[in-house]
Amino acid sequence: MNYETLHCTVDNDGVALLTLSRPEQLNAFTVTMARELEQFFTVDARDDGIRAVVVTGAGRAFCAGMDLSAQGNVFGLDESLAPTPEQMHTAYDTEPLHSGVRDTGGKVTLAIHALPKPVIAAINGAAVGIGATMTLAMDIRLASDNARIGFVFGKLGIVPEACSSWFLPRLVGIQQALDWVYSADIITAEDALRGGLLRSVHSPESLVDDALALARSYVSRRSPVALALAKKLLYRNGAADSPLQAHLSDSLAMFYTSIGDGKEGVAAFREKRPPQFTGSATALPRVFPDDE
Amino acid sequence: MNYETLHCTVDNDGVALLTLSRPEQLNAFTVTMARELEQFFTVDARDDGIRAVVVTGAGRAFCAGMDLSAQGNVFGLDESLAPTPEQMHTAYDTEPLHSGVRDTGGKVTLAIHALPKPVIAAINGAAVGIGATMTLAMDIRLASDNARIGFVFGKLGIVPEACSSWFLPRLVGIQQALDWVYSADIITAEDALRGGLLRSVHSPESLVDDALALARSYVSRRSPVALALAKKLLYRNGAADSPLQAHLSDSLAMFYTSIGDGKEGVAAFREKRPPQFTGSATALPRVFPDDE
Amino acid sequence: MNYETLHCTVDNDGVALLTLSRPEQLNAFTVTMARELEQFFTVDARDDGIRAVVVTGAGRAFCAGMDLSAQGNVFGLDESLAPTPEQMHTAYDTEPLHSGVRDTGGKVTLAIHALPKPVIAAINGAAVGIGATMTLAMDIRLASDNARIGFVFGKLGIVPEACSSWFLPRLVGIQQALDWVYSADIITAEDALRGGLLRSVHSPESLVDDALALARSYVSRRSPVALALAKKLLYRNGAADSPLQAHLSDSLAMFYTSIGDGKEGVAAFREKRPPQFTGSATALPRVFPDDE
Repeated sequence: MNYETLHCTVDNDGVALLTLSRPEQLNAFTVTMARELEQFFTVDARDDGIRAVVVTGAGRAFCAGMDLSAQGNVFGLDESLAPTPEQMHTAYDTEPLHSGVRDTGGKVTLAIHALPKPVIAAINGAAVGIGATMTLAMDIRLASDNARIGFVFGKLGIVPEACSSWFLPRLVGIQQALDWVYSADIITAEDALRGGLLRSVHSPESLVDDALALARSYVSRRSPVALALAKKLLYRNGAADSPLQAHLSDSLAMFYTSIGDGKEGVAAFREKRPPQFTGSATALPRVFPDDE
Repeated sequence: MNYETLHCTVDNDGVALLTLSRPEQLNAFTVTMARELEQFFTVDARDDGIRAVVVTGAGRAFCAGMDLSAQGNVFGLDESLAPTPEQMHTAYDTEPLHSGVRDTGGKVTLAIHALPKPVIAAINGAAVGIGATMTLAMDIRLASDNARIGFVFGKLGIVPEACSSWFLPRLVGIQQALDWVYSADIITAEDALRGGLLRSVHSPESLVDDALALARSYVSRRSPVALALAKKLLYRNGAADSPLQAHLSDSLAMFYTSIGDGKEGVAAFREKRPPQFTGSATALPRVFPDDE
Repeated sequence: MNYETLHCTVDNDGVALLTLSRPEQLNAFTVTMARELEQFFTVDARDDGIRAVVVTGAGRAFCAGMDLSAQGNVFGLDESLAPTPEQMHTAYDTEPLHSGVRDTGGKVTLAIHALPKPVIAAINGAAVGIGATMTLAMDIRLASDNARIGFVFGKLGIVPEACSSWFLPRLVGIQQALDWVYSADIITAEDALRGGLLRSVHSPESLVDDALALARSYVSRRSPVALALAKKLLYRNGAADSPLQAHLSDSLAMFYTSIGDGKEGVAAFREKRPPQFTGSATALPRVFPDDE
């Protein structure tokens, strides 16, 4: 794993610490960083040696947003493949429109979301624009008390991106989501905690260590298969129309784990010893009709 | 804009103050008020001169609910077009049933919901029945500390209407929604704040001014197109099955704004000057397959 | 109503107190208890004499989870009908997979969820595994201050079941749900209250009485039809894609009640007397296309 804009270490418990590393630019988001984040979450972090990921920023910021100092197409959209504005008012045709226009931040958050392992944001300073929205696709958000978070899109004349319109209302409810997006203000860690965006607030000195300790507590003596399936079940069924979908998919997941890591888990429980799980998050069964 | 049951003023910032104006009847909801609210939200408030709407009540109440002093069909349903109770037990056929029976309050809340601009409730007193449920379709709810809110339907033998079963669980979670609807009690502003229904509680003297100031902060130096698209994205994608839908729609919205108000927004940011947005909320691109 | 593992009493107000009754085994969940809970919620509790249900545990626990002392197939899944693990990696075919594999806990929670009456959990002690997840399908959760709740599946190598991946994110948001499931820890009543899982915390001495009083307040002078339809509307529409679905279904429910218990409710309101509702929760109209 050798990146231009990222730095990654993995400890003995399989907890990866991924650091956004453009500290002089406040870790501003570039097309290169996007490509490397996609590479990390879709390929590198799938390695069984990685059990969980903590994401933080180098220096005093987490990520100050899209690097607006870049010339030309700052948002990274391929305009040559895009519809004209006139086409957008007269037709909605999924194929041609979507093939050419894919938000760069969204490709990154979909990659983060799809990793079948716990992902924790350790927000160590300014997290603005894509710097804020990329954390929404992470499962858990911790922040230092000097963190500042901004969904500032309205001031720039653009919209909340990176699938944030899916994640934010699920995290904080529709009223708080609308308030933060309409206001486009920078909010404090305390406000973000009160609003439900953050799990907890930490001192700047302890933030990353606390996040790593939390990640270790999630994966220590836990089945990787069980965690991976639980993540998928909670996101998918939490957004499903009825509990029947949950029943069909969790029945399959229960059956699969009950004859795998569940056998060892029950045996270890009965024998009052630590379990020795052998399942892998890279070989998951299909529990939803469209699972690959 | 000339109404029997409403009063509307618009300030220099484009913030409309819409007042429910039947103070002697505690602004009780009538078929005329319903028709005028629909007219306001589907036609009059679409004018580009209006950027946001604050809704409050004249006198000491916000809206005391359906005017039960009316004779005959108090709920405003057209019984001549409706199915018989026997038909409702033996058949569910969308066309004939739905064509004749459309809840009056629901037609109003769908109109409020569809306005592509921030809508703020300033709940200045009693908000009961449709007086409570109509505020759920507004984006943000402020209340005075003497406000009282009641989802009292169970005591009247009827059900929560006006699409409240869609909005209320999204605002306060399913447990709180069930508790308030089962109890059918009048709740205080303090309880409503704690339960997540209200953004904030204000003194009776400052409520409307505070709501107007909040509305101004939402629209000042903001792109009307960006706000309109953000509102649609947050409601639609916040209720969607998967983040992929958000990715497809926010990609289109990002592309559209990036070559429109977003160009000006980025230029103004770089030049450290206020932006001069030219987009209009009345000419939105199609970002969802069923957008008109 | 004569059960091996349950005990049920019904008071004069129609409030049933259902007690999980294997106190020496901390009310651990067995296949017999599952069958009896299904019988209670799908048949016995449908009786019009029962207006609401409170569920608690005998002795010092609520339910300590699946009875892992049982030999053989502890999870109650019928392995003879199930797919092989290899089949689960290569094919997803709803019919054969789902016909044979139905999670035992999920059959119980679907039965609880489908009862058209208020259901309240009175969590009097340890509620672990299925003991925790079965309460998620109840509408309201009260707990004593010494209650302990655990979504401990990850430690056993299995997944959260009993449709909990549908209920838990709706109750506490996706971040809190992931945190509790990843951690697999036992949480206190105080933490569960702060996280939004519990409506309220009570002393061990008053818990059941408080829950019974709450149940009585829900059903006293309320229309059983109105409560039943409200429950269905809030769960179904709260998970629907758009408010239009709520408008179609609540219009039908409003129409049905407006010519039934609603007529009596309005008359009683005008005449300042208690209503005498005659509707029944066992004869509900069809308000959704797939209603039976």
